[in-house]
Amino acid sequence: MAKKRKLRSKKHIGQIPGSVIYTGEKQDHKLFIEAFDYNKGMHIEKELLDVEECFNFEHGTVTWININGLNHVHAIERIGEHYELHPLVLEDIVNISQRPKIDEYDDYLFVVLKMLYYDTNEKIVSEQVSFVLGPEYVLTFQESEGDVFDSVRERIRQGKGRVRSMGADYLLYALMDAIVDHYFSVIEILGNKIEDFETNIFSGNVDEDISQNIQNLKREILRVRRAIFPLREIISRMEKGDNSLIEPKTITYFRDVYDHLIQVSENIDIYREMIWSLMDMYMTTISNKMNEVMKVLTIMASIFIPLTFIAGIYGMNFEYIPELQYRYSYFILWGVMIVMFIAMLFYFKRKKWL
Amino acid sequence: MAKKRKLRSKKHIGQIPGSVIYTGEKQDHKLFIEAFDYNKGMHIEKELLDVEECFNFEHGTVTWININGLNHVHAIERIGEHYELHPLVLEDIVNISQRPKIDEYDDYLFVVLKMLYYDTNEKIVSEQVSFVLGPEYVLTFQESEGDVFDSVRERIRQGKGRVRSMGADYLLYALMDAIVDHYFSVIEILGNKIEDFETNIFSGNVDEDISQNIQNLKREILRVRRAIFPLREIISRMEKGDNSLIEPKTITYFRDVYDHLIQVSENIDIYREMIWSLMDMYMTTISNKMNEVMKVLTIMASIFIPLTFIAGIYGMNFEYIPELQYRYSYFILWGVMIVMFIAMLFYFKRKKWL
Amino acid sequence: MAKKRKLRSKKHIGQIPGSVIYTGEKQDHKLFIEAFDYNKGMHIEKELLDVEECFNFEHGTVTWININGLNHVHAIERIGEHYELHPLVLEDIVNISQRPKIDEYDDYLFVVLKMLYYDTNEKIVSEQVSFVLGPEYVLTFQESEGDVFDSVRERIRQGKGRVRSMGADYLLYALMDAIVDHYFSVIEILGNKIEDFETNIFSGNVDEDISQNIQNLKREILRVRRAIFPLREIISRMEKGDNSLIEPKTITYFRDVYDHLIQVSENIDIYREMIWSLMDMYMTTISNKMNEVMKVLTIMASIFIPLTFIAGIYGMNFEYIPELQYRYSYFILWGVMIVMFIAMLFYFKRKKWL
Amino acid sequence: MAKKRKLRSKKHIGQIPGSVIYTGEKQDHKLFIEAFDYNKGMHIEKELLDVEECFNFEHGTVTWININGLNHVHAIERIGEHYELHPLVLEDIVNISQRPKIDEYDDYLFVVLKMLYYDTNEKIVSEQVSFVLGPEYVLTFQESEGDVFDSVRERIRQGKGRVRSMGADYLLYALMDAIVDHYFSVIEILGNKIEDFETNIFSGNVDEDISQNIQNLKREILRVRRAIFPLREIISRMEKGDNSLIEPKTITYFRDVYDHLIQVSENIDIYREMIWSLMDMYMTTISNKMNEVMKVLTIMASIFIPLTFIAGIYGMNFEYIPELQYRYSYFILWGVMIVMFIAMLFYFKRKKWL
Amino acid sequence: MAKKRKLRSKKHIGQIPGSVIYTGEKQDHKLFIEAFDYNKGMHIEKELLDVEECFNFEHGTVTWININGLNHVHAIERIGEHYELHPLVLEDIVNISQRPKIDEYDDYLFVVLKMLYYDTNEKIVSEQVSFVLGPEYVLTFQESEGDVFDSVRERIRQGKGRVRSMGADYLLYALMDAIVDHYFSVIEILGNKIEDFETNIFSGNVDEDISQNIQNLKREILRVRRAIFPLREIISRMEKGDNSLIEPKTITYFRDVYDHLIQVSENIDIYREMIWSLMDMYMTTISNKMNEVMKVLTIMASIFIPLTFIAGIYGMNFEYIPELQYRYSYFILWGVMIVMFIAMLFYFKRKKWL
Repeated sequence: MAKKRKLRSKKHIGQIPGSVIYTGEKQDHKLFIEAFDYNKGMHIEKELLDVEECFNFEHGTVTWININGLNHVHAIERIGEHYELHPLVLEDIVNISQRPKIDEYDDYLFVVLKMLYYDTNEKIVSEQVSFVLGPEYVLTFQESEGDVFDSVRERIRQGKGRVRSMGADYLLYALMDAIVDHYFSVIEILGNKIEDFETNIFSGNVDEDISQNIQNLKREILRVRRAIFPLREIISRMEKGDNSLIEPKTITYFRDVYDHLIQVSENIDIYREMIWSLMDMYMTTISNKMNEVMKVLTIMASIFIPLTFIAGIYGMNFEYIPELQYRYSYFILWGVMIVMFIAMLFYFKRKKWL
Repeated sequence: MAKKRKLRSKKHIGQIPGSVIYTGEKQDHKLFIEAFDYNKGMHIEKELLDVEECFNFEHGTVTWININGLNHVHAIERIGEHYELHPLVLEDIVNISQRPKIDEYDDYLFVVLKMLYYDTNEKIVSEQVSFVLGPEYVLTFQESEGDVFDSVRERIRQGKGRVRSMGADYLLYALMDAIVDHYFSVIEILGNKIEDFETNIFSGNVDEDISQNIQNLKREILRVRRAIFPLREIISRMEKGDNSLIEPKTITYFRDVYDHLIQVSENIDIYREMIWSLMDMYMTTISNKMNEVMKVLTIMASIFIPLTFIAGIYGMNFEYIPELQYRYSYFILWGVMIVMFIAMLFYFKRKKWL
Repeated sequence: MAKKRKLRSKKHIGQIPGSVIYTGEKQDHKLFIEAFDYNKGMHIEKELLDVEECFNFEHGTVTWININGLNHVHAIERIGEHYELHPLVLEDIVNISQRPKIDEYDDYLFVVLKMLYYDTNEKIVSEQVSFVLGPEYVLTFQESEGDVFDSVRERIRQGKGRVRSMGADYLLYALMDAIVDHYFSVIEILGNKIEDFETNIFSGNVDEDISQNIQNLKREILRVRRAIFPLREIISRMEKGDNSLIEPKTITYFRDVYDHLIQVSENIDIYREMIWSLMDMYMTTISNKMNEVMKVLTIMASIFIPLTFIAGIYGMNFEYIPELQYRYSYFILWGVMIVMFIAMLFYFKRKKWL
Repeated sequence: MAKKRKLRSKKHIGQIPGSVIYTGEKQDHKLFIEAFDYNKGMHIEKELLDVEECFNFEHGTVTWININGLNHVHAIERIGEHYELHPLVLEDIVNISQRPKIDEYDDYLFVVLKMLYYDTNEKIVSEQVSFVLGPEYVLTFQESEGDVFDSVRERIRQGKGRVRSMGADYLLYALMDAIVDHYFSVIEILGNKIEDFETNIFSGNVDEDISQNIQNLKREILRVRRAIFPLREIISRMEKGDNSLIEPKTITYFRDVYDHLIQVSENIDIYREMIWSLMDMYMTTISNKMNEVMKVLTIMASIFIPLTFIAGIYGMNFEYIPELQYRYSYFILWGVMIVMFIAMLFYFKRKKWL
Repeated sequence: MAKKRKLRSKKHIGQIPGSVIYTGEKQDHKLFIEAFDYNKGMHIEKELLDVEECFNFEHGTVTWININGLNHVHAIERIGEHYELHPLVLEDIVNISQRPKIDEYDDYLFVVLKMLYYDTNEKIVSEQVSFVLGPEYVLTFQESEGDVFDSVRERIRQGKGRVRSMGADYLLYALMDAIVDHYFSVIEILGNKIEDFETNIFSGNVDEDISQNIQNLKREILRVRRAIFPLREIISRMEKGDNSLIEPKTITYFRDVYDHLIQVSENIDIYREMIWSLMDMYMTTISNKMNEVMKVLTIMASIFIPLTFIAGIYGMNFEYIPELQYRYSYFILWGVMIVMFIAMLFYFKRKKWL
């Protein structure tokens, strides 16, 4: 149900291009703005109460403004105005069904990513994060609070690593790296799920739900692919160094993110191939089971149908059946039947059906 | 039937190149011409009664002439003459089985798209729309009235958005964007259909029609793909900005359409993969059902065939069968049979066939 | 048989490169040469009796010489000498198993195509047509008379369209266009065949020949693909306008042929995908049929085997079976059996096997 | 067994790069060197007894030295020294599991091909042939005598064709063309094998070996693909004419070889697709057979189980069964049974199981 | 279990970029440093006791320092400091789940490869080896002692081949060549495994484990692919000769490694295709087996069910059954039954079920 609604809202058909309309479901979320301002020597961390406060930061420092709550479109329009963002950029920020992409404008770089995590129901959630990289600032836009950026925050606060001594481009790198890092934990869970399936199928625990679960897993992988694969092109473009906003010494770092991304992508493709072949395994298992059922039937029928026929013969009421009068007939017949029974068992044994 | 006829009419084999011959089926449709003429300050909207009226618009304004009724080839030839369109352009306008394409001429740009919608029978209809973009005009050609351009009309009338303050290239963008926007609603219906199939297959509601329906769905997806995929190349070419008719500031907007198109294409490919795997699911379901049938047969046969054999034994007419005389034989036999019955049940229970 | 022979003759292994050896089967075909010579003002149409007559045409006109009968290798060598064709060109003309290709020489352009049509046995025939385009002439070489060029002939005769007012390059276009146009009718027949298969499979009319027919259809599509697909590259190269023999104003027309070709190719690919999925449908249909057979067996066996067992019980000859003496036993037993019968029917009804 | 040994010997792990070590199995083969020396006016053909004789040819003629017997590594090293070949070239010449490749050195061109033929056991044999093209010489290296070059030898001897009037590059072309020509006969045999399979499967002659044979055929095609496909890139590179050793007028001829190669490759891909679909056909045939088996069982069981039940009824020993006393009961019962029998037959007829 | 742990440790999520953290499992491994220092005239081989000793080598010689024990991160950081390696390089050296890659820095080249071998449990182990190539040195980093470089060591010691007379770039080549050479032995074992499967399946030895084993084999091939395929791009980049650290005369040798790599890759792809088709074979074998089971059942049932019916007829207790009184009835009946039996056998013989 949720899925259908989402698709419908992907685009408000017929809307004016550049309209800033939030397309998500978290309509009554509180606006939460957080700001970091730092250089090599100092750092300030603030929770902003008002959008206007976003514009008070000095030059010469790197400013990171993290806006949570895309439903507050007016605040976002106000920020867009101040930083002179193109109307289409604002539209894309609040339209949460964007495909990951990079748009290069004269004074800034606009990047849309997907943050992936498993929610409490073990479902993959894909949340859109938009970045605007200016000469001395990075803006990040998220639907709601809660993200994977805590390690970056900590590094800014404690001055660990290089983040405080480098520019806004390095901050962008650090944030994107945090997101890509998190992909590893998502695909790890995926990998474990696939292994569980394998174990189940191989141990013969195949209930009918399994094909539904495989289908669901396929769809999950498709979704993850869709969130991650476009990113390769994005980072590859950043790494090429055409853009004046990204300094040469930062490019090495983007190359590192690119390597991680290729690693994630390869894993996804391997999982994809494995899940397709799981389906084959499953079919084989079903066929094997049917084979087993058929063998039981065939063995039972092949043994007892001829014996029943013999019993039927001597149940006939003909007046003259010579065997009937003979005193040991009954016992001889039992002997014959037991011999037939054993012969049958040998036959099936030799055919490896038993 | 309709399908076959359409293919046959795709091309009148042996016709002279540049012949303006309408290949559709709406032979007696009325000609309907609608014109918008606007600039930043004003707009005129007219329903034209005669083709000649198309040529009266002043310079300095953007003119949109929307011609409905491709069967009126003489009117179209008259327009082609006035705007100095190449004979092959006119041929392509009235040949409704064109593949989406873009042709760049010296003074104008010729674009053919497919407008997709579901008709009342839940069938996908693909209607051809041709655009001619000149320096100050856009011509659109449709088979019949009724389109997805109402939002654009409204924006021109009310001066909302940027359309009135930009040139003819922006108008072209707005119209193409309206068509691409509508693709989202088509693929959404497709997506819902696939989900319904999944639900049906997983719940075991598999009648024999299902494979026919899946085949139909596959074909629908193929048709949609065919209408949408060539568009990517078209818009990508427009976005590259080689053409003097499209101004740099409009290119950003075409890039936006391109993003939407990639999103639609990705969805189509995901649906395609899902439907191929649905077929697998269906096969598995059939095999599972057969397994179940076989189990019932095997259980019934395996239990009762041996019991019947025993009953047959004591139905024999041998004169000397010692058990027959014994008074409690019958009851003992019942006991034995019930024990066998229960043992069998246990056996099948342990094999998880029950 | 014919097929095997053809492949064997594809190349006379070990022959000298440039040897003009006819590889087809129409060894005793009469040589038939037809010539058109025209400009804007006039046209001459002749049936030539001798090869030497081919060389008498004046400058300033477009000359089309159509040679039928590739077995007359000496005539072809004579023509090659006059028009200074490369020996490999002559070899390719008479080697009828060429792949469609274009070879650019200094003074002329050499193009090999395949003309496709269904013969009277509903088999696809692929006949090779070679074109040589010089500055003022077009030579066409065919195995035998009978082609798809009648519409072009008519246009030359009657001066319809542009053909008389344009150069030899336009004539080449017109002839190639005629061939490509004819592809539409071939793939239309293919499409109808596939639809007939679908109808058959869906209606359950599946005899064992169907898989053979599908295999044949697959092979037909492979052959058509092979004839048509290389053409795309050929025309795409012509359309790029590197060659001085093709004038800029004619290029627009080649672009048109290219569009048609893409359309044909797309249809072929769609048919190909449909036929692969037909095979799946067929497998599903077989499985469904087996399911149905199994159900009938299971129902019959499950109902009557237990009843037969009961009858067997009271056929036993034990001296003391209390029920046997009771007067209404027989009727009660019938009652029990009918109840069991009905219960079974209900059970199978609920399982939707009936 | 042979196969395993071969793979193991592919590369002597840990050997020094440039070591000239023969990796084939023909260890005790006699060295056989054959030389042709010719120009337009004359030709000399010699069987050389000693490697040193290879170096006595004059300038101004084309020299072809054909060395058979790769186990004679010292002779080959001696030749390499004289012609100043790179050590890696010598290593590649005697390592018979090279992939087809071209290496361009300053003064010469090194090409490795695979010669394919069917041996007497109907197995495809792939023998490596190495070519070194210098300004006035061609060296060819083969494992053992016996090749497909006889037609070239004959042309040199008799001065037929262009070979005597062109340079060493044309000789290289002629030799490679001879190899590619021979591919046609190999793939023709492959094609015939596939057709035989088809005929067998369609006529129902499916023993269990068929899947093994199909697997073998698949592997043969893979091997042929592997030998032929890299060649396309090689010849395509030669045809591009960057190399000063290949003259412009010879390039046309390499283009011709390229065309043949594409034709061979296409056939291989078609065969590959056909063989994959053969497997499908085979599966369908098996399923159809099982269907038939099931039908026989179902018909027999469905007809006789109910009849046996009825017979069982009147075999019961109840004291009071009214029908038993009635004189015509037996005959009436027969009537009833025959009617049931016929009804069943009708039912199965209508279901098209008979 | 091990596999899961490994994936989890791929990246310490949230760690600072450039942190040198060992991600493997060999935490308590001893540090072992081995050094070679040589030029044309001499060579020194030392086991170093302390990291500081690494920095004592003179100029004018080639120095190879082989560091084993990635858990000693401080030693590695110390080396990184001395050779001025980028922090990300150090991070990649100790992060053992890198994808094979090449990173070009100003003064050095950083290459990560995977060394593949089968361990004692017949499992493929993939161990990471990192190379740093400077102007006069090569550093290699391995998790633990034991590698495939013995042949290179021997060549340095004994001055065999070119290694002593060439630069550090040639040493890098020799080491990488040793690794690639070893791939051949790995894929050979893979190939043998696949052949064993084939033999098993074709001989009908199909237990249920086979599908699990095939799945495992598929995964092994995926892992090998993943280790080997990225290498092609790496070596292809080295071979292009953009880098000043690799001299032109060494490039020929890298081209040779590239050829070997292509050969390995092709083999892997062939194995991959073969294993996919093995699965098909397996399915066919299962179906064939089921067919056989069904035939036995059908034959037994079809022969004895009608006979049992006939016996049932004459077991009925009707007072008037004329045949019962006739003296030879019993024998005649036996005759009839034997005839029926033989007729059935003939019927099944003709159907080729026997």
